Amino acid sequence: MIKVALDAMGGDFAPAQVIAGAILARQTLEVDITLVGEQNIIDQELQTQKSPFIFTVVHTPDYVTMDDHPSEVMRAKKDASIFVATRLAKEGRCDAIVSAGSTGAQMAGALFILGRFKGVDRPGIGMTVPNVIGSCALMCDSGAQADCKPRNLLEFGIMASAYMQSMFDIESPRVALVNIGEEAEKGSELTKAAHQLLTKSNLNFIGNIESKDVLKGHADVLVTDGFTGNIVLKAIEGIASDVLSMVKVAANTSMTTKIGGLLLKPGIRKIKALMDYSEYGGAPLLGVEGVSIVCHGRSNAKAIKSAIKQAVKCVETGLVGKIASAIN
Amino acid sequence: MIKVALDAMGGDFAPAQVIAGAILARQTLEVDITLVGEQNIIDQELQTQKSPFIFTVVHTPDYVTMDDHPSEVMRAKKDASIFVATRLAKEGRCDAIVSAGSTGAQMAGALFILGRFKGVDRPGIGMTVPNVIGSCALMCDSGAQADCKPRNLLEFGIMASAYMQSMFDIESPRVALVNIGEEAEKGSELTKAAHQLLTKSNLNFIGNIESKDVLKGHADVLVTDGFTGNIVLKAIEGIASDVLSMVKVAANTSMTTKIGGLLLKPGIRKIKALMDYSEYGGAPLLGVEGVSIVCHGRSNAKAIKSAIKQAVKCVETGLVGKIASAIN
Repeated sequence: MIKVALDAMGGDFAPAQVIAGAILARQTLEVDITLVGEQNIIDQELQTQKSPFIFTVVHTPDYVTMDDHPSEVMRAKKDASIFVATRLAKEGRCDAIVSAGSTGAQMAGALFILGRFKGVDRPGIGMTVPNVIGSCALMCDSGAQADCKPRNLLEFGIMASAYMQSMFDIESPRVALVNIGEEAEKGSELTKAAHQLLTKSNLNFIGNIESKDVLKGHADVLVTDGFTGNIVLKAIEGIASDVLSMVKVAANTSMTTKIGGLLLKPGIRKIKALMDYSEYGGAPLLGVEGVSIVCHGRSNAKAIKSAIKQAVKCVETGLVGKIASAIN
Repeated sequence: MIKVALDAMGGDFAPAQVIAGAILARQTLEVDITLVGEQNIIDQELQTQKSPFIFTVVHTPDYVTMDDHPSEVMRAKKDASIFVATRLAKEGRCDAIVSAGSTGAQMAGALFILGRFKGVDRPGIGMTVPNVIGSCALMCDSGAQADCKPRNLLEFGIMASAYMQSMFDIESPRVALVNIGEEAEKGSELTKAAHQLLTKSNLNFIGNIESKDVLKGHADVLVTDGFTGNIVLKAIEGIASDVLSMVKVAANTSMTTKIGGLLLKPGIRKIKALMDYSEYGGAPLLGVEGVSIVCHGRSNAKAIKSAIKQAVKCVETGLVGKIASAIN
């Protein structure tokens, strides 16, 4: 059975929601979950939640907080739960890591404990972007590397393409470059150079995609630097929610619109679900020697469960090996 | 009376919609409009539209097409309508330029004919971003300069701040830096350095703003490089429209939801209007020695009229002088 090391102390709603997620995962999945964190707190939480399952607990009193600086915390708190979880994977005692704690610390841990792939200059974070036709694309990088070189973008494309092949059985994922204009000569120095590299690569590169089209389902992989990727993702999150709020306000203006709003409520709930990242699991770290899934800081039990499911699938489908052979 | 030079040949729906916009402007505004373009075509269009007004026409047979390269077209077509219109402003025969043609050509014309302000390294394009509370912010740069230095972002902030003071009577516009994270130390090398410059400036700098919050009305000025600005603007455009389409699809699933959709229709139309750039005029070129308003390529008559109104207000409020004194 696949073993997942879960950082019980990471996330805005840890440990309660994280442990609830572990219980939820055990109810529906074939998976062996190791909880990493303060033993007393975990035991108490399992008791409070009346867990029907017994979990292996690896005790460590330390954990990373949002006040810790990612580049310093590895030295200052080398036994923080995320680093202990990552070492379990490095030592082969677990197959994958899941955490909703500090992304920077998780990335630092993966880099220094698991190590980078040979041939990868910078790892990226892949984020699932849902679309209006009901499928999804992986956007990489979505926030790990704010300043990128053209070769980093090519590597993100290769790794994300391997991910979509491995996880979604897409034979030849359509790779698009997020840019300001569809023509090859449009964009910044970075995107213009990346466009040339992607064109020359073996990827199924379909050209530039503008941010207005990222939800339309034209591509399976969205390549971008971490700054732009984060801007796009947070724009989707914020704008979708603002527009739905405006629909709600519009529905509250009169008796007739109130009735209209009530009748449409199930439909709008469905749209919210489509935009709800907790359905899609977490974001894989791509380019490191192992499976490490980053969850949103505000993950609830369902999001943690989805991330565990995703981690299991990454291991089952041999994602790491596929990325390694794609990159070389 | 303020004189506006209107590029009759610029835009996807030129000359029909441009000339319709000129007629609309004359019906509601005190403004003297000079139409620049092919005399025969303009005369015929005025006749077709049964214009109740007589316009001054400055004849020139040439115009910029979307196939022309912005950096070369000034030499190849020096008498294209946009350049003739810009020269009218340079020579004092008009007070402002409005065009829905190639943004690159309009910017090149403004730079070489009107000239840059002393002290401005790079001009920017300011774009009006509506927000959920019914006011708006100016985003600068929104696409002119894909690759920026920190000082460019500071200049965009100063110029956009002067614009919001001049055009919206906001005494001390709140200036925010578009970034990936609210903390000062977050972001790319560019945004981190720009954050320091903005902090030290005399602007009312309120710190970073994430793309998820740009529609919330927290800031009057949104400072960003042209690549990111364009990404954010097109994300707003595309995502708002995608979400509203999903609401429409949801409304079409059953008889009850159809009734709900019908009852909510006026409200949703209002949201669309709020997101409709044609209401907000065009985008001012900031940092050049004159008033030049860039319209969306797909501008209809209403958008052209709004841009003419905006141009008149820029001249009336002495925008250029205010930017000049703010920048020094």
